[in-house]
Amino acid sequence: MKVFDEIESEVQSYARAFPRIFNKAQGEYLYDEEGNQYLDFLGGAGTLNYGHNNPIFKEALLEYIQADGITHGLDLHTKAKGEFLESFSEKILKPRNMNYVMQFTGPTGTNAVEAALKIARKYKGRENIISFTNGFHGCSMGALAATGNSHHRGAAGVSMSGITRMPYEGYLGDDIDTTAYLDKVLSDSSSGVDHPAAVMVETVQGEGGINACSVEWLRNLEAVCRKHDVLLIVDDIQAGCGRTGSFFSFEEAGIKPDIVTLSKSLSGYGLPFAVVLMSPELDQWKPGEHNGTFRGNNLAFVTAKAAIDHYWSDDKFAKEVQRKGEYIEQRMSAIVEKYGEGNMTTRGRGMMRGLNCISGDLAGQITKEAFKHGLVIETSGADDQVVKTLCPLTTSDENLKRGLDIVEAAVQKVLKSNDVPEEHDFFADDSDSAEESLAGAA
Amino acid sequence: MKVFDEIESEVQSYARAFPRIFNKAQGEYLYDEEGNQYLDFLGGAGTLNYGHNNPIFKEALLEYIQADGITHGLDLHTKAKGEFLESFSEKILKPRNMNYVMQFTGPTGTNAVEAALKIARKYKGRENIISFTNGFHGCSMGALAATGNSHHRGAAGVSMSGITRMPYEGYLGDDIDTTAYLDKVLSDSSSGVDHPAAVMVETVQGEGGINACSVEWLRNLEAVCRKHDVLLIVDDIQAGCGRTGSFFSFEEAGIKPDIVTLSKSLSGYGLPFAVVLMSPELDQWKPGEHNGTFRGNNLAFVTAKAAIDHYWSDDKFAKEVQRKGEYIEQRMSAIVEKYGEGNMTTRGRGMMRGLNCISGDLAGQITKEAFKHGLVIETSGADDQVVKTLCPLTTSDENLKRGLDIVEAAVQKVLKSNDVPEEHDFFADDSDSAEESLAGAA
Amino acid sequence: MKVFDEIESEVQSYARAFPRIFNKAQGEYLYDEEGNQYLDFLGGAGTLNYGHNNPIFKEALLEYIQADGITHGLDLHTKAKGEFLESFSEKILKPRNMNYVMQFTGPTGTNAVEAALKIARKYKGRENIISFTNGFHGCSMGALAATGNSHHRGAAGVSMSGITRMPYEGYLGDDIDTTAYLDKVLSDSSSGVDHPAAVMVETVQGEGGINACSVEWLRNLEAVCRKHDVLLIVDDIQAGCGRTGSFFSFEEAGIKPDIVTLSKSLSGYGLPFAVVLMSPELDQWKPGEHNGTFRGNNLAFVTAKAAIDHYWSDDKFAKEVQRKGEYIEQRMSAIVEKYGEGNMTTRGRGMMRGLNCISGDLAGQITKEAFKHGLVIETSGADDQVVKTLCPLTTSDENLKRGLDIVEAAVQKVLKSNDVPEEHDFFADDSDSAEESLAGAA
Amino acid sequence: MKVFDEIESEVQSYARAFPRIFNKAQGEYLYDEEGNQYLDFLGGAGTLNYGHNNPIFKEALLEYIQADGITHGLDLHTKAKGEFLESFSEKILKPRNMNYVMQFTGPTGTNAVEAALKIARKYKGRENIISFTNGFHGCSMGALAATGNSHHRGAAGVSMSGITRMPYEGYLGDDIDTTAYLDKVLSDSSSGVDHPAAVMVETVQGEGGINACSVEWLRNLEAVCRKHDVLLIVDDIQAGCGRTGSFFSFEEAGIKPDIVTLSKSLSGYGLPFAVVLMSPELDQWKPGEHNGTFRGNNLAFVTAKAAIDHYWSDDKFAKEVQRKGEYIEQRMSAIVEKYGEGNMTTRGRGMMRGLNCISGDLAGQITKEAFKHGLVIETSGADDQVVKTLCPLTTSDENLKRGLDIVEAAVQKVLKSNDVPEEHDFFADDSDSAEESLAGAA
Repeated sequence: MKVFDEIESEVQSYARAFPRIFNKAQGEYLYDEEGNQYLDFLGGAGTLNYGHNNPIFKEALLEYIQADGITHGLDLHTKAKGEFLESFSEKILKPRNMNYVMQFTGPTGTNAVEAALKIARKYKGRENIISFTNGFHGCSMGALAATGNSHHRGAAGVSMSGITRMPYEGYLGDDIDTTAYLDKVLSDSSSGVDHPAAVMVETVQGEGGINACSVEWLRNLEAVCRKHDVLLIVDDIQAGCGRTGSFFSFEEAGIKPDIVTLSKSLSGYGLPFAVVLMSPELDQWKPGEHNGTFRGNNLAFVTAKAAIDHYWSDDKFAKEVQRKGEYIEQRMSAIVEKYGEGNMTTRGRGMMRGLNCISGDLAGQITKEAFKHGLVIETSGADDQVVKTLCPLTTSDENLKRGLDIVEAAVQKVLKSNDVPEEHDFFADDSDSAEESLAGAA
Repeated sequence: MKVFDEIESEVQSYARAFPRIFNKAQGEYLYDEEGNQYLDFLGGAGTLNYGHNNPIFKEALLEYIQADGITHGLDLHTKAKGEFLESFSEKILKPRNMNYVMQFTGPTGTNAVEAALKIARKYKGRENIISFTNGFHGCSMGALAATGNSHHRGAAGVSMSGITRMPYEGYLGDDIDTTAYLDKVLSDSSSGVDHPAAVMVETVQGEGGINACSVEWLRNLEAVCRKHDVLLIVDDIQAGCGRTGSFFSFEEAGIKPDIVTLSKSLSGYGLPFAVVLMSPELDQWKPGEHNGTFRGNNLAFVTAKAAIDHYWSDDKFAKEVQRKGEYIEQRMSAIVEKYGEGNMTTRGRGMMRGLNCISGDLAGQITKEAFKHGLVIETSGADDQVVKTLCPLTTSDENLKRGLDIVEAAVQKVLKSNDVPEEHDFFADDSDSAEESLAGAA
Repeated sequence: MKVFDEIESEVQSYARAFPRIFNKAQGEYLYDEEGNQYLDFLGGAGTLNYGHNNPIFKEALLEYIQADGITHGLDLHTKAKGEFLESFSEKILKPRNMNYVMQFTGPTGTNAVEAALKIARKYKGRENIISFTNGFHGCSMGALAATGNSHHRGAAGVSMSGITRMPYEGYLGDDIDTTAYLDKVLSDSSSGVDHPAAVMVETVQGEGGINACSVEWLRNLEAVCRKHDVLLIVDDIQAGCGRTGSFFSFEEAGIKPDIVTLSKSLSGYGLPFAVVLMSPELDQWKPGEHNGTFRGNNLAFVTAKAAIDHYWSDDKFAKEVQRKGEYIEQRMSAIVEKYGEGNMTTRGRGMMRGLNCISGDLAGQITKEAFKHGLVIETSGADDQVVKTLCPLTTSDENLKRGLDIVEAAVQKVLKSNDVPEEHDFFADDSDSAEESLAGAA
Repeated sequence: MKVFDEIESEVQSYARAFPRIFNKAQGEYLYDEEGNQYLDFLGGAGTLNYGHNNPIFKEALLEYIQADGITHGLDLHTKAKGEFLESFSEKILKPRNMNYVMQFTGPTGTNAVEAALKIARKYKGRENIISFTNGFHGCSMGALAATGNSHHRGAAGVSMSGITRMPYEGYLGDDIDTTAYLDKVLSDSSSGVDHPAAVMVETVQGEGGINACSVEWLRNLEAVCRKHDVLLIVDDIQAGCGRTGSFFSFEEAGIKPDIVTLSKSLSGYGLPFAVVLMSPELDQWKPGEHNGTFRGNNLAFVTAKAAIDHYWSDDKFAKEVQRKGEYIEQRMSAIVEKYGEGNMTTRGRGMMRGLNCISGDLAGQITKEAFKHGLVIETSGADDQVVKTLCPLTTSDENLKRGLDIVEAAVQKVLKSNDVPEEHDFFADDSDSAEESLAGAA
């Protein structure tokens, strides 16, 4: 199909890494036009936690469409929306003692982030938002201001104000709790950091390189927010919906964010969907103040309800995810032990794991080699140096093993054929404390 | 369903005007849970040009889902995307001698606008963008900066820079061609208006109050852009996809925008979808530089292809829309003539028409009365003073007549029972030239 | 002195037009190192309204220095400051029924403008400020945002937000009162122009090309400000201190600005000095909130007091200025009549007058020719197309005649030797209405 | 003089602390109207390094004024300017092997900072500037963006973009070299810190609380700048002109900043004056691109030349300053040892020293008590907690002793009468490492 070359924009990226024309998908499998099967460890970049075209949701979807259920309803009350809200309330919020209000935004993650930032600023009457090194929150201008990646930031073409950047956990070395630094600048009236409306954080930075912060750091972060009357926003777009072994990624930490953004796997079926959860007192929106044509994607409500009903009515699924997450960790640790010395380390939490290679080049060779053996797997991080698994949480044990076998073989093959590049980004390794790193600067 | 009251955010708007729980829709009809039928002249705010759940597209959609076609594919090449691109290329671009490249953005209009602004700024290396009074381009921060409405702007909570506002056609009175003013500020090195990357315009301002600019003004605008080496962006999200009687709203003017945004009715089925069309030389994106998880909503590709194939393979549909548009204009003019003196005027183009009332209060009474008789119809404009028709373009002649009968009856009833409010926003009437208006200020 | 070439920055400008080393000055005369005498019609760009080294002020200054009066006092109360305040209060404010409070800012015009914008934004709690095409308010970042000139704006290197530009009087043609346009955008909640804290205006735009607005326009502007609860700031830095024939340039219009900035000729002796006058209720500053090391330039207080006492104790001086201003106007009109057809028009008010030439090239030739005959005179305007007189208000009748004779001779000589350039900035001539101008764009 | 109460703005600050009307000054003495003498340890906040009305400069000044030397010359070449440039070149630049170009800006520190930021951004074509916690650079909008103090920032009323804040030396505890953190964010393409044009730093943060960074830290900072192709700007407005024991405050460190700002004591006589020094290749200004009416304050050139000739023709003066600085340090250390345990520590370098008290309240009591005994001395720091000496460098040994005796007596008296306040800003003490501080947050 030469039409792709002829008229699709150069902005495409995954299509370059996986140059096939795909036309079918089921569970953890992708198929191309010629019928070749691929094991999918990319998982729609976190959107396909329940696999492609999950048959349970598919049935509900087909039935709804067949019956001429409302497809597009702006923000009208529809039966589909109501039933989704009820399931979400009963199976997600109430068991966790959460009393969030839900806002349906335009159905992309970045739209949800824009809404979250707006309501935080509006509620607190302050402009500044704290976000973190290596954070990724989207590409529309408000969200992009909070995003760390210079590749994306460079496209802005305009000043992005209203954000102060703080170091994520480990950024200043293992010995430094960076929430203490945040506390200090917020305590110091001459720090030059304006009193923020909110702190926005990912518990595992997906695009930033599968950096998982600790439960302690999150708790400290929440404590600093409370001390300084600052809202805490968890951007759970990639790490939420079960990826780390619980529905919300912050459950283990026991913190209570004021605002949570969800998208990606929320619909369960890969359908565009995004929401903002917020404490009721924050819900100061005037009618229609933040709007968007597709904020009522009813097909997504149908599959999202099916996903919640099927997977989150009890804790079986969560436990499965935890078990598989440990398996991935074991396999990755073994790979690092066997081949990784000086070349890679492991990272992540739950089923959001990565091999942090010493260069993007090495990571890219590994994913390329894996693709030759039928595994779709991608990299992330500032230098695309982390080989990451975002396979469906429903991936069978057999396929999990098979995928990791392919990764291991790829690592082995690439390292054997490589003189591993000697140069090393000086500060990339968390175990360096910031002081030691100075030598590199001087 | 009390869940809406309990946990849906206060930001909802249409749900307040039409307080029913809808659960089914077909063509120009909406149905609520109790089986009541409503004629839909809101049309998903311009998203349902082909009616709800158009049976032709529905069949294609069901077949695709049934066969486990790719649902979510990030920006991977898929058969569904390829086929959509081919249809769009063959039936839309080529017959119009257009050679645009297409970028798939996150599937909401505001995401497309964000991408359009970025690429314009990046390509020209300039920050400033000209947008117009009463323009509406979305609610994410980049797009919001270009949006005129203070209700939406007020929620930003942060400075929005990079936009210079210019008066739309008619804003300074009928005698003033506001493109001459634009030309002057761009010619004057001391005007204080920085050399812009682009001018962004809607040919009919939907949210701004169904303000339709003339063909001459659009041509003058293009001429000013060319003279000053400035890109021309047409935001055709609401007025495009056939609404004004041609696929693109600017065809009649014969202009060649450098960038066009499309969304809303593009998928034909109310599914989230948005694209940016741009001249090939503008396509300077680096891979993934502007991204988004749902930029490959394959279900939308399927229905969008079906829509183009069915409605745009020849000019029959366009002519039907023009004919119906004239009918709406005649009926509205008759209403104004009969009841409107001093109370309302007509506005718009094609099937995007409005009754511009002297107050939002009057307009609101009319739509409320119409709803009592089973017609879903909304207002727009700075003061919600315009009763607008955005009914499906596929609405039957019979239903078109029925809907306008309901509007007429509502106007009659409301005006009879009203002492029409005397106060009058001084400058709202285009027929006032700016000079005459001064008396109001002094 | 080659040290200028060796280590003075390239940013110098006047030094290029008048390449001499000056070392002495008295009244309207400048002298270079070699003893050559020059008649000064540049007048320190409006800073030397009372001539160079005015002997009356000089005596006071010498005495003060001799007696070890405080030179630098931060914002401490000093006798010199107190006496200046008393004179200003008694001779300027009280006779005009003004009850302004005075803020001493860093002693440059741009510092005063920065303070004025801050207090307006702080008091109203709004960010936006309206400023005008061709306005000039200074080069520090806050003031620069309000300045129109692209030459200066281009050096910012950063987004300048918080300003909306409106057309000055005449900018849209003689038939359009641009305050009506301002009124309309402020009345229209969807105009995209955020409710401003203030409007900032010069009554005669000095750097912008000696554009003098009418008394009616100023009154209309004040009326629009009052109607919309917007502060009115008059930047009287160049046009104030007597230049237009009254101490403040807005006295004839009878308006009451909320804030006035003064600098340039305020000290009378060319010493750095700048203040902000504001209505008492606006004076919401916290102690030291806007500060600056040199905000107490006591030498300037001494000469400023002497200037007020000597020249503003009655209306004699003002009448003299008016008389001389009329003389300049007559001479300039005669020049235009004799030589100017199609080449130049007159502009300005009081002793702030200009010959608006059809090109900067022509204007530059005239001033260059004049300098050959001992007259220091400069241009201003977007294209440096206006030959402007800013001679000391104290210039003797004889010297006024002599200077204008030189200008006339220069005009005659330049025009004779020129094929006057044919090209013409289309909109530069106020007599073109904006509509007529369109032809140029199309 | 009730005129101060009647019409001077509330923004006054020093006048509140020292409520006298001063009218005479000589050397280190101030005199009020009633003839009372005060010892001046405030020194015009760093502007009076050579004392009030230094008789050597006074003579030159009187002579110049008497002879009708040019007072105000815009940026014209004048003899006074040329002679100043020659002295500066011969006695300051050449002996230090510096080849800076000098730009005369509007004569206040903030104007110089604005120019420095502009030229850095223009030259590098980047917008971001790094500045530091507790930095103070002025109150006009561009400079204010770089200033840390929330008291001053809060008055902006508009977004201030283009600045990224980094921790100054010691801010994260004594063990952390914060230049390593800077190096890391500049090395990390996903840090969210845009590649800056420049880093701007004070070697001793005056307003920030007399924080003196070490020679090593400055060298590391320069190394990081070089590594990342970033300009280094030293804002030497307060610490320069001899205050730390050398003309420039960075001489001991041996670094070569690309840009240096000077003001305050540059004129020597308290006359408004400010310049930017920059490496010749940076001098890319177009003529007049950054201008200002008073950028040629010729009286200041005269006294500045006298100051340089008299005090900087050899190293005697510098050595005197070093000697006196050590004396101040000894006396302050003794005070801390005797009375300070838990209450205060010493800070600073050269003759820029401070007693860092545990609260602003304590520091304020000390300065108030000192004033009762005829000593004018002020506080600085985020909480006004540092009692600082900025006495003239020319203060006699006797008066130095007398002033410090008064300070010591004040400390003794205040502490005796106080229950020293127990509360303690957790992170204010540099000896706390950031980790330990966390307890305070949690």
